[in-house]
Amino acid sequence: MLLAHKLASREYKPGDTVINVKNIEIGKNKTIIAGPCAVEDEETMVYIAMELKKMGAHILRGGAYKPRTSPYSCQGQGKRGLEILNTARKESGLPVITELTDIRNLDLLCQHADILQVGSRSMQNFPLLKELGRIKQPVLLKRGFCATLEEWLLAAEYILNEGNHKVILCERGIRSFDSYCRNTFDINAVPAVKNLSHLPLIADPSHGTGRKELVAPVARAALAAGADGIMVEVHPEPEKALSDGHQSLTLEQIHQLIADLKPFYSLIS
Amino acid sequence: MLLAHKLASREYKPGDTVINVKNIEIGKNKTIIAGPCAVEDEETMVYIAMELKKMGAHILRGGAYKPRTSPYSCQGQGKRGLEILNTARKESGLPVITELTDIRNLDLLCQHADILQVGSRSMQNFPLLKELGRIKQPVLLKRGFCATLEEWLLAAEYILNEGNHKVILCERGIRSFDSYCRNTFDINAVPAVKNLSHLPLIADPSHGTGRKELVAPVARAALAAGADGIMVEVHPEPEKALSDGHQSLTLEQIHQLIADLKPFYSLIS
Amino acid sequence: MLLAHKLASREYKPGDTVINVKNIEIGKNKTIIAGPCAVEDEETMVYIAMELKKMGAHILRGGAYKPRTSPYSCQGQGKRGLEILNTARKESGLPVITELTDIRNLDLLCQHADILQVGSRSMQNFPLLKELGRIKQPVLLKRGFCATLEEWLLAAEYILNEGNHKVILCERGIRSFDSYCRNTFDINAVPAVKNLSHLPLIADPSHGTGRKELVAPVARAALAAGADGIMVEVHPEPEKALSDGHQSLTLEQIHQLIADLKPFYSLIS
Amino acid sequence: MLLAHKLASREYKPGDTVINVKNIEIGKNKTIIAGPCAVEDEETMVYIAMELKKMGAHILRGGAYKPRTSPYSCQGQGKRGLEILNTARKESGLPVITELTDIRNLDLLCQHADILQVGSRSMQNFPLLKELGRIKQPVLLKRGFCATLEEWLLAAEYILNEGNHKVILCERGIRSFDSYCRNTFDINAVPAVKNLSHLPLIADPSHGTGRKELVAPVARAALAAGADGIMVEVHPEPEKALSDGHQSLTLEQIHQLIADLKPFYSLIS
Repeated sequence: MLLAHKLASREYKPGDTVINVKNIEIGKNKTIIAGPCAVEDEETMVYIAMELKKMGAHILRGGAYKPRTSPYSCQGQGKRGLEILNTARKESGLPVITELTDIRNLDLLCQHADILQVGSRSMQNFPLLKELGRIKQPVLLKRGFCATLEEWLLAAEYILNEGNHKVILCERGIRSFDSYCRNTFDINAVPAVKNLSHLPLIADPSHGTGRKELVAPVARAALAAGADGIMVEVHPEPEKALSDGHQSLTLEQIHQLIADLKPFYSLIS
Repeated sequence: MLLAHKLASREYKPGDTVINVKNIEIGKNKTIIAGPCAVEDEETMVYIAMELKKMGAHILRGGAYKPRTSPYSCQGQGKRGLEILNTARKESGLPVITELTDIRNLDLLCQHADILQVGSRSMQNFPLLKELGRIKQPVLLKRGFCATLEEWLLAAEYILNEGNHKVILCERGIRSFDSYCRNTFDINAVPAVKNLSHLPLIADPSHGTGRKELVAPVARAALAAGADGIMVEVHPEPEKALSDGHQSLTLEQIHQLIADLKPFYSLIS
Repeated sequence: MLLAHKLASREYKPGDTVINVKNIEIGKNKTIIAGPCAVEDEETMVYIAMELKKMGAHILRGGAYKPRTSPYSCQGQGKRGLEILNTARKESGLPVITELTDIRNLDLLCQHADILQVGSRSMQNFPLLKELGRIKQPVLLKRGFCATLEEWLLAAEYILNEGNHKVILCERGIRSFDSYCRNTFDINAVPAVKNLSHLPLIADPSHGTGRKELVAPVARAALAAGADGIMVEVHPEPEKALSDGHQSLTLEQIHQLIADLKPFYSLIS
Repeated sequence: MLLAHKLASREYKPGDTVINVKNIEIGKNKTIIAGPCAVEDEETMVYIAMELKKMGAHILRGGAYKPRTSPYSCQGQGKRGLEILNTARKESGLPVITELTDIRNLDLLCQHADILQVGSRSMQNFPLLKELGRIKQPVLLKRGFCATLEEWLLAAEYILNEGNHKVILCERGIRSFDSYCRNTFDINAVPAVKNLSHLPLIADPSHGTGRKELVAPVARAALAAGADGIMVEVHPEPEKALSDGHQSLTLEQIHQLIADLKPFYSLIS
């Protein structure tokens, strides 16, 4: 099967793309991205960031603008969320990643975030992808929950084709017929995409499973299959999280996970 | 199963919503929307529009801004496409519908189109939906190709909740495991959504099948199941169409289809 | 796309296959198959059969051996069920169809049934298909709920290839990502399979939707798309049915449905 | 979500089930099952078996009765295949596993095989499952390619409920919308099923990916997620294999894989 992507392909660039974010080399060393689904109050965010920094996590995640299925669900704190994230960034020294949902917020996010995230529902928002192709920040492009590998790589191609070569792919689970899990983490996609493309690939086992008890085993699996890192939802008190508490790890659990993953690093290269 | 939509629900509004576009009553009388996938040159567009008008089609479709899987595929004629569409509108007297892909083009489209279309890939582009909730034109909201009924109705809810009550739903096929057809037209969705919601529902058998020989039988089926109309891709010479030629009907075929559908109108009401 | 079936193909036999069961010509005239999911007590079965005969239904369905997801669910009445079915057959004059789940019951079922049904879960039970290729009775072959069109036609090919040319295909819905309906009736499959094959095609909107309020509109849609008939679950008191009550019509509802379908017969041929 | 299985559940039996086959303890130590898709000629089978034994594989697989989508594809060597498998078993000392497709072959297979396999297409062949509940051999129950976790565990329940407690589950990939891989290995199912059930779980990355270059990374991933072993298709000359050559490893590749997996054993327990 011949896929139609070009700039994203191994044929175009045989060696791995390594993306440097404040001395974190994504695509070279295993990268741990962690944080709450939605940005919380400032005190909590700073606390989470400091704790994550101590454990050895590399990047802080947190949503300020939240894409929600229902208009009646919390839509995120918006600009105030970005400011809180910025404070947590400064206090902890961790770079931050946050999601862009509205093309009109692009400049604002570029001022506050080290990496911009494209969510699963926006993977084929082509005007947004084109604009992200013209910025300097790296872009983490989540796979659409019903996107084929080809559609995903062609979405990356939209960004690359405009001149931004710092694209990080993120597998976050696909929609299947079974409702036991919120999504089905597509483990095949990890080695398949690493074969097809030179871009770094991060695994998101939180959305990929939707169940906190499955996050750690699927995180291990993703690294064993060749992922360049993981992105995990964390909250000090998951039952009080503004969203996604059912799939968030506690700080103790993420601490344990980071420790458990380290021996895998040397086995897989 | 309780779904979470409110303003879109039959409980909120028991009677059918009827949307008037230049005296065409969508939701009351069966509506035929037809035209090419992408706007073609002016002469061809005017010709198609005049022919469709003669046959009894009600609304002209044509894409000026095209969402395409690959950045290397034709992206539509943009503003020039809108102007051509406008000419065809004036010449034929048919109202026109065209797709909004970029929130920044909203004003421009509002000036040129009678109905704005949200494509399948944009169904959960929430900032776009919110803006469409503030305009006067009706919005045709295509179902995402992997969206549940609840997600679809909640996307409509985003528009309704901002004050625009003129939302037309469009079933256009879902993604399944079988690759014989491009998509699987979800016939169950037609009576299910008509039960769940007061909004008009249009069927798109062109995208719903992806094969021209299946368009007419699936169009008949959709009306028999209770759809308020159909949207069909048409081209005088499908093999020369700028896109979607494999699923476009010729003008003779759409003429025949419109004639074949008429006896169904009285059977289903 | 070239499919690999041969004996089932239109290329092999351009004209429609018509299967005669006690003067009912399946594939020529629209056929109504109705009855309870599982065979009930004798009095109820005879009552249902007599009522269906009066309404103009053509064939009586009823399961004696039931394939159930759980070993703890009712597994059918077995041989006693066949005897009851036989009584209803004699009293009403309606031919009967029942499901074969165990290859070792083949002779027994051949003695009691006019048509043998292969259920969705058995569509790729190849030893069973081969044995059914050697009997005289027609076989109704349900599509597996995750079978492609090609897999379905090749399952028919197993029967045809052994010498039994009386195969009736039955579309009964596929499994999709949306849980609103139990299954998604694949309306595209109706005209697609009628194009690909000369075999008669029956639609099962009861399993195809899993919701009684959707049975009638999807039955209409299936006929409008070209199906040769419908198979519907019926029960005098659905809430007391041994199984599938949630998708069974009452006798009044099936009466109404049969009347509503008649005007469609002349429109579609 | 409450699932309906009982005897298969952790609630019923908290400790892991360990199944002893000729001193191989499935469910306790990581188990490697390998061999060709279909039994080949005797010389090749004995050679493969001897080589696998040397490398440290534990169980030999090979199909004598092959379920094939088309009646025109090779259907396996049948009884002769079982005899060849038996010779390879004696020469190598490896226990063998082979698939039961026809309930009428049960006694024959019980004489020749140490473990009986239920294929994906037979997972809901309930009469077959019941008979397998009455034998002494362990049964490896593959997940149907569209079966939910609940349906899979309830299929196991059919066997357990008849008295055979030696059931080994096998995840072999599910059917998704993406055609890049033949199937999508469901990595979530590995820890989910280990949580829900005490039964051993084997991963089949050959069918789970359908692409030889993905077998090793997905095998590693499955062990990292908690699988009790792997089942892999192997052939000395994949391009000459009677079936499934595109997903078979060479003997050199399986040798390398077994070596690569060993360090994982101690990390995951």
